[in-house]
Amino acid sequence: MADATGLELRSTVGEDGTLTLSLEEVTLGAPGPDEVIVRVEAAPINPSDLGLLLGPADVSTMAVSGDAVRPVATFAVPQGRMGSLRARVGQSLPVGNEGAGTVIDAGENGRDLIGRKVGMMGGGMYAQLRKLPLRDVVPLPDGASVADGAAMFVNPLTALAFVETMRMEGHKAIVHTAAASNLGQMLQRICLADGVPLVNIVRSAAQAKILTDIGATHVLDSSAPDFRKALVEAIAATGATIAFDAIGGGTLGSDIVQAMEQAASRSAAAYSRYGSDTFKQLYIYGALDLSPTTINRLAFGFQWSVSGFLLTPFLQRAPRETVKAMRARVVAELTTTFASRYTATIGLAEALNPDVLRAYERKATGEKYLIDPTR
Amino acid sequence: MADATGLELRSTVGEDGTLTLSLEEVTLGAPGPDEVIVRVEAAPINPSDLGLLLGPADVSTMAVSGDAVRPVATFAVPQGRMGSLRARVGQSLPVGNEGAGTVIDAGENGRDLIGRKVGMMGGGMYAQLRKLPLRDVVPLPDGASVADGAAMFVNPLTALAFVETMRMEGHKAIVHTAAASNLGQMLQRICLADGVPLVNIVRSAAQAKILTDIGATHVLDSSAPDFRKALVEAIAATGATIAFDAIGGGTLGSDIVQAMEQAASRSAAAYSRYGSDTFKQLYIYGALDLSPTTINRLAFGFQWSVSGFLLTPFLQRAPRETVKAMRARVVAELTTTFASRYTATIGLAEALNPDVLRAYERKATGEKYLIDPTR
Repeated sequence: MADATGLELRSTVGEDGTLTLSLEEVTLGAPGPDEVIVRVEAAPINPSDLGLLLGPADVSTMAVSGDAVRPVATFAVPQGRMGSLRARVGQSLPVGNEGAGTVIDAGENGRDLIGRKVGMMGGGMYAQLRKLPLRDVVPLPDGASVADGAAMFVNPLTALAFVETMRMEGHKAIVHTAAASNLGQMLQRICLADGVPLVNIVRSAAQAKILTDIGATHVLDSSAPDFRKALVEAIAATGATIAFDAIGGGTLGSDIVQAMEQAASRSAAAYSRYGSDTFKQLYIYGALDLSPTTINRLAFGFQWSVSGFLLTPFLQRAPRETVKAMRARVVAELTTTFASRYTATIGLAEALNPDVLRAYERKATGEKYLIDPTR
Repeated sequence: MADATGLELRSTVGEDGTLTLSLEEVTLGAPGPDEVIVRVEAAPINPSDLGLLLGPADVSTMAVSGDAVRPVATFAVPQGRMGSLRARVGQSLPVGNEGAGTVIDAGENGRDLIGRKVGMMGGGMYAQLRKLPLRDVVPLPDGASVADGAAMFVNPLTALAFVETMRMEGHKAIVHTAAASNLGQMLQRICLADGVPLVNIVRSAAQAKILTDIGATHVLDSSAPDFRKALVEAIAATGATIAFDAIGGGTLGSDIVQAMEQAASRSAAAYSRYGSDTFKQLYIYGALDLSPTTINRLAFGFQWSVSGFLLTPFLQRAPRETVKAMRARVVAELTTTFASRYTATIGLAEALNPDVLRAYERKATGEKYLIDPTR
């Protein structure tokens, strides 16, 4: 097959503090022996993609130029936030962690994949065409659509990684925030199947219903007046001593650790001014709240840890057999445990439409956008 | 020997939110076969003792009654802080983690210790007499005074535990705050002997001099205008990726992790919006600043952990041989590496004198009080 050409979404931060989104024409050379070329047909907009796409740009400053086919969107980055972007200034960066599509060309070791639908990881998925090594694509099971396979890496493997981390680090139940997300629903389904007690924290009654509808036992609304009391009770009932927090900013994470300490203190034999001897672990894996994390550590002694959590280092650290089993489970349960729901499907150029961009940029739980670059 | 009677300092929190310090007369029965009775002659006031002694009481509310021999001091505990004290309400608690003195009686397995000076751990050291199991006393080496042996557990073992933790967790250099403390000086001497690079953070030029006088290479004054820049340089020069922080509150700990990230980013091959892949560990082991810990995590990606650090769990977790070697080193180097300096020696009743109490309660680096209950 001849060279293939397609549009690719790029994000660039300039020296002057302008972030630019544009669609660049990219020509892919013929695939190497262990490579495939995929027509991208579905790629989700995950919170983890927005960090690269928009960085800390001020969305209210958005201006659009160009034309309907190849719009160009620009944003101002507040001066105080340019420091963290130094390493990417001037680089035209492709975006989109994962996606799915149809293999349209392949090197000699991937010939049998031509015409097959595959899930993909490796970045740069907001593009019409993507060339990838064979190891980064997974054929979709029979009956699965590209929408089913678009998000088979980040959320499913992260949800499974939470449960594996719980096991590896000796905990027996989990607390999860922003729990009505696609990821949170997957985690609840895994926990139900595996018999792992899970305390879900959401921010509204509507979100709570999403979880109770799939069988959740412990669903707490952090906006309810008795939230803190209910949290201690749920933690005491489950024995949760590990939490995964998508919010990150503010005091919610600290409040969770404090509730774990209060639950642990109920069974303490004697007073210790160093707190209980129950070890409490909070992992922060998202940044729905960009403000600093406030830790009221005097409320929970010295047996605690607050850490960043990222999927890739987990996959590098975990036993190879564990990772293999996790991947196999995602394929086997792609349309059940790991089903994702999307609120809307948009084209590549539409992703640069101000109304659409503001909608997906809000990261509202229960709202999820899928890009279909063939539109 | 007949029953022995002596005074013992006690701290009690009442239901009404009053914290009371008093000297109680305690009668000790004859020692069991594996017990000794020690006349306490020196016990340091460590920051870790103040938590139990004064808790979160408001020192400005101090009132003294009783007489010169057995004064009684009372303080108000702010209502909002009573929650963390629930488990100790109504209990008359002995205070003082460690000390030294002379063995005056012993059970059949400790007879050879009678008349010997020993270091002790196990709490309740602010007392004229202390009955202890043999395993909690260590005979002082020849030539060592009770002042030399009064603090042979908490600071020496904590300083050694920092270095062992560094090794066990795969780091190669350390950052330490409040570094001019007795503990900090011990840590610097250990690091010099063991060839471990150490970045000391202090709060004044006078404190800096204490450390440079004993051979420190990296001493940074956090009140200096170029502190943040100098911190990045010192971390880049040493490769420090683990920090031990005695301060706890505010942003200093976060600033240290951020400086580690900045140093790591210098050598990063490509931009990652998840930050560098260098793992950064901050341990908080003290609370010189009682305010919440503020973590500006967006400045340092996801490869980090902020944790409480406490000696006892470390000693339980570490290999038995490591702990044995640590203890032996403290005895061997008691008057050199592990030498402590004291600003003043006070009697038991004097510890309840308002001027004296306010002086040791300030926890000023370089000031250290020793209680001698025989005064």
